[in-house]
Amino acid sequence: MQETKSLGGKSFIVRVELQTAVIKFGQVAAAISESGGDMIAIDVIQTSRDHTVRDLTVTVADAVQIDDIVKALRQLAGIRVVNVSDRTFLLHLGGKIEMKPKTPIQNRDDLSRVYTPDVARVCMAIHDQPEKAFTLTIKRNTVAVVSDGSAVLGLGNIGSRAAMPVMEGKAMLFKQFAEVDAFPICLDTQDTEEIIRTVKAIAPAFGGINLEDISSPRCFEIEQRLRDELDIPVFHDDQHGTAVVMYAGLISALKVVGKSLPESKVVICGIGAAGMACSKILLAAGVKNLIGVDREGALVAGNRYDNPSWQWFADNTNPERIGGSLSDALVGADVFIGVSKGNILTRADIERMNPDPIVFAMANPTPEIAPELIEDIVGVMATGRSDYPNQINNVLCFPGMFRGALDCRATTINEEMKLAAAEAIAETISDEERSRIYIIPSVFNQQIVPTIRNKVVEAAVRTGVARRIPREFRQ
Amino acid sequence: MQETKSLGGKSFIVRVELQTAVIKFGQVAAAISESGGDMIAIDVIQTSRDHTVRDLTVTVADAVQIDDIVKALRQLAGIRVVNVSDRTFLLHLGGKIEMKPKTPIQNRDDLSRVYTPDVARVCMAIHDQPEKAFTLTIKRNTVAVVSDGSAVLGLGNIGSRAAMPVMEGKAMLFKQFAEVDAFPICLDTQDTEEIIRTVKAIAPAFGGINLEDISSPRCFEIEQRLRDELDIPVFHDDQHGTAVVMYAGLISALKVVGKSLPESKVVICGIGAAGMACSKILLAAGVKNLIGVDREGALVAGNRYDNPSWQWFADNTNPERIGGSLSDALVGADVFIGVSKGNILTRADIERMNPDPIVFAMANPTPEIAPELIEDIVGVMATGRSDYPNQINNVLCFPGMFRGALDCRATTINEEMKLAAAEAIAETISDEERSRIYIIPSVFNQQIVPTIRNKVVEAAVRTGVARRIPREFRQ
Repeated sequence: MQETKSLGGKSFIVRVELQTAVIKFGQVAAAISESGGDMIAIDVIQTSRDHTVRDLTVTVADAVQIDDIVKALRQLAGIRVVNVSDRTFLLHLGGKIEMKPKTPIQNRDDLSRVYTPDVARVCMAIHDQPEKAFTLTIKRNTVAVVSDGSAVLGLGNIGSRAAMPVMEGKAMLFKQFAEVDAFPICLDTQDTEEIIRTVKAIAPAFGGINLEDISSPRCFEIEQRLRDELDIPVFHDDQHGTAVVMYAGLISALKVVGKSLPESKVVICGIGAAGMACSKILLAAGVKNLIGVDREGALVAGNRYDNPSWQWFADNTNPERIGGSLSDALVGADVFIGVSKGNILTRADIERMNPDPIVFAMANPTPEIAPELIEDIVGVMATGRSDYPNQINNVLCFPGMFRGALDCRATTINEEMKLAAAEAIAETISDEERSRIYIIPSVFNQQIVPTIRNKVVEAAVRTGVARRIPREFRQ
Repeated sequence: MQETKSLGGKSFIVRVELQTAVIKFGQVAAAISESGGDMIAIDVIQTSRDHTVRDLTVTVADAVQIDDIVKALRQLAGIRVVNVSDRTFLLHLGGKIEMKPKTPIQNRDDLSRVYTPDVARVCMAIHDQPEKAFTLTIKRNTVAVVSDGSAVLGLGNIGSRAAMPVMEGKAMLFKQFAEVDAFPICLDTQDTEEIIRTVKAIAPAFGGINLEDISSPRCFEIEQRLRDELDIPVFHDDQHGTAVVMYAGLISALKVVGKSLPESKVVICGIGAAGMACSKILLAAGVKNLIGVDREGALVAGNRYDNPSWQWFADNTNPERIGGSLSDALVGADVFIGVSKGNILTRADIERMNPDPIVFAMANPTPEIAPELIEDIVGVMATGRSDYPNQINNVLCFPGMFRGALDCRATTINEEMKLAAAEAIAETISDEERSRIYIIPSVFNQQIVPTIRNKVVEAAVRTGVARRIPREFRQ
């Protein structure tokens, strides 16, 4: 893959075709400079008597300047802008992952072992003992990253082809962080039954299924049905990845402010896929006083809701039956968990909370309230963004979670394994390091995956869902 | 991956647990020697006060001796045979392929380019122009190897899990020979409609579909429907790979004996999936006098057949309406193509053919007639086996075929592209080299893939199924 060598800043490559009789290259260079670009490389691609095609590598301080430069070039006479590629696009050219044989096939002897005729013996060994698929095929280490493209990042329903770059990126992260082989399966259907049927049909090759960017409420039924009908772990990362990392952050945050989870009043806003998963992990972790808030305000038992998740929420939480708006619910709260939308909170709302409030404003890309507005009054603040402290980032969870699940051939990922993963993440931060601006480790912290993996395997073995007990866990 | 270092012969590794008070290691070594094994390595895995676990690497002249040795060991007192792995099994441990990121993710800057937030721009570029999936995702270079496990090698309906080692092997060959990324999709269903739906649903990630080891007659409808309903090539390798390589061999064989295809009388035996595909490529190549034979004898117009393929065959071939048995049909034939079963021909049958008969006895693993029985009377003989000259091997076709189809983003693989591939394979053997025992190149001949690729691209461009014209084919 071609790649630019720029240091710092953003760089892009623009391919231009010049009519040499009409325009001099100096004019091109000047136009780039005047629009704020720094040309750091020129590659001549083709030259004829009256034309020349060149790739110009240009560095800019900010990606928005790319448009300005291209516009300025297009206004010149005698130039045709053939193509503009910035570094991000170049990194995606031809896709970001590849399939590699683990051993080369150099001669007929190799060929006869990995393929016919010798492969027949391996096939028959699996036919005789189907569980051998876990030792003799890629099932041991391979996860499908499945999406229907219906709720991709913050982009919405962009479809399966456009979702591929995200799923390929996810496959890269699986390998890079946890040595898990992952393959993107982007589905050309958004029908619940069709998705369930398709994932079940392709399951034999895989040791786990990571569901990704599937819109609510379909994601609930798809996940639940696949969990019931498959004997390998099925994990909707948007729900449970978020929930695990949120809870990991909360464990740390509570230590920072010196509060206990069972005694805390927790308000969660946004009872969609992520909100439901966050609530369930909080309840499993021992939260007693949980209030859910969505567009109709605080969810209260006795009311009737069309949305079955809301109804479940109303019936099973909010023991004091607090009604009213989000602001009303926040009175005397210790923790706010936001998985809703940007800028729905005011400073006055946070002032209604108990002293040292914990505010996790995880709406993307705009948090429920900007951290700078309440910096002086919060106990601990976290967001989904990388440009503030305490980023709640799913990348912290899924690689180690599946590493653990695959290593013990888990049949499922249960609530105990999720709690264990969250505790493992929280544990990577020592008492000395922990502070209001450091409750959650960086995704590049190399302790995370092995720590999660061990805790997840231990939980799987303890709860009886492990089909294999790794050597170090044997008595 | 662990791998033994033996030179020649077959080697295997047996893990034994010895009760050191009961058995001496010398007894183990003696038992192995006496059963014909040569112990070439010992690895001590674990030792305690009264037990020792060792991996013994043993070379044997023939794989059947492995069973004898294991049996001899099991008869000793104080020994437990924990596990037996031969080299083939070791090569398959944990699967034979892995997914690799093309670039490492070393810091937050890398992460933000390949994943959120920058990946969003790449997603939206594809959303705006769906054809960009071919440049910005793995679709450009990735093929699904799809099987339902219903007709795997000669093993029959062994199911999807047991089929995986073959499909992984195929993915290795795709990469090794043609730099094509392939991923095995083994389906947990053998229902025609379900297979069609599933393959359509997962198609967005792929630039081509290689169907494999799906039993007849379902394979016909599955392939045809997928060809009609998808805009990427769908190729049932058992049919068309066999047909292409058979025809490549036939081009050479006819040159060796100095006959022309249109003037040759061709008898084909076994009108299943491969037989139909062979017949279609022969008719497309200009064969006029083709007779199909199956269990009911020669297929003749006017008769009624339950099998729709047979009916089509009777209605569209056999212009002289020759009836009777296979022996009857062979009278005066120039070419015999066998894709049926072992040992159905006699020397007398071959003697009925015209002088210098061409006999392709491709039944696996036992040819329709053993080459040694007719060595002195055939013009050219070919089989599906690697231990005789002239092996008709699918591996010669599919890597180059898909390399070409992907490089020009073909919407399909049509008959012209198959003929072109066959001509390309035949072309790699020069007039000087060609002989009755060398009509087809080795799969390790490095000219094959580029030659096929170029001819296939050219045919695709010529017939209007290429969505991209590679630079070297532009006017």
